[in-house]
Amino acid sequence: MDFEEKTISSATIFDGRIVRLRVDDVSLPDGGQSKREIVEHPGAVAILALDEENNIWMVSQYRKAVEQVLLEIPAGTLEEKEHPLECAKRELAEETGLIAEEWQEIITYYCAPGFCDEKTFIYIARNLKKESSLSPDRDEFIEVSKIPLETAYQQILDGHIIDGKSIIAVQYAVYNYLGK
Amino acid sequence: MDFEEKTISSATIFDGRIVRLRVDDVSLPDGGQSKREIVEHPGAVAILALDEENNIWMVSQYRKAVEQVLLEIPAGTLEEKEHPLECAKRELAEETGLIAEEWQEIITYYCAPGFCDEKTFIYIARNLKKESSLSPDRDEFIEVSKIPLETAYQQILDGHIIDGKSIIAVQYAVYNYLGK
Repeated sequence: MDFEEKTISSATIFDGRIVRLRVDDVSLPDGGQSKREIVEHPGAVAILALDEENNIWMVSQYRKAVEQVLLEIPAGTLEEKEHPLECAKRELAEETGLIAEEWQEIITYYCAPGFCDEKTFIYIARNLKKESSLSPDRDEFIEVSKIPLETAYQQILDGHIIDGKSIIAVQYAVYNYLGK
Repeated sequence: MDFEEKTISSATIFDGRIVRLRVDDVSLPDGGQSKREIVEHPGAVAILALDEENNIWMVSQYRKAVEQVLLEIPAGTLEEKEHPLECAKRELAEETGLIAEEWQEIITYYCAPGFCDEKTFIYIARNLKKESSLSPDRDEFIEVSKIPLETAYQQILDGHIIDGKSIIAVQYAVYNYLGK
């Protein structure tokens, strides 16, 4: 069966700094019609920076959308025409001051495909060196910490880490690096 | 350090069927100001329906936002004042026709806290019985399949399953039920 929904018309509602919102009128497989509210996002990267002792770097950051400080792995939004790996290297340096010699793309996924086109590229960064000084965006206030990967995993299970990309990356790393 | 961003003013841009978009002017910890584009979403549930042979139910569904058919675990959006567990039971029945006797909430997370307040509640459903007939929403066309949990995990690693909630749930289940 062909599930495709063909676009009849599309209306841009908002074109912002981070997101763009549009509403599409679509034709359904059975010939019916519906509306799809779609949030466009440039895409993002997230980095699990893992050292030789299986510690990872986390950043605490206030997230206005959820009105709380979340503990997350370093991450950021793709700039125009920026390659995800270059973005990952830039964000890791900006948020933690770390340079990594070894990069591995582990999982690429859609965070909310029901209404949003944001694609997130998750990398594991190893052979870490402290080099650059922090240079977060001017409207970004973060606190960096280093914790054992195992501790981060427990913080997922006990509900302390509640950020999707961080959960995916930590679960991946625990099972692939700690051999759980 | 207090990271909180206080709202100076808030403007609603769009109030749709699924999402609501607003732009907040906020005061930053250093006294500066910035704008936050925020997508409001009612919240969602996702269900990993696991049988005695460690098979799970998946649904294939066209996702207009990403213009492709994705393989996902059953999921849905919370209706007004609906309890997540009730929503999970309803969505599982609607999308797969299954009733489960055993429900466990495993992980609750934010899929994109940088700009969206959507909270997703993931459940594992066990002791499954085929009872009701399918009754997806009128604009929802899905194909249901049953695959081994181990196969789903491999499909995450090879990039075939690229839906965030499905990745989190399958990773959790593989490590907690297959003892990987």
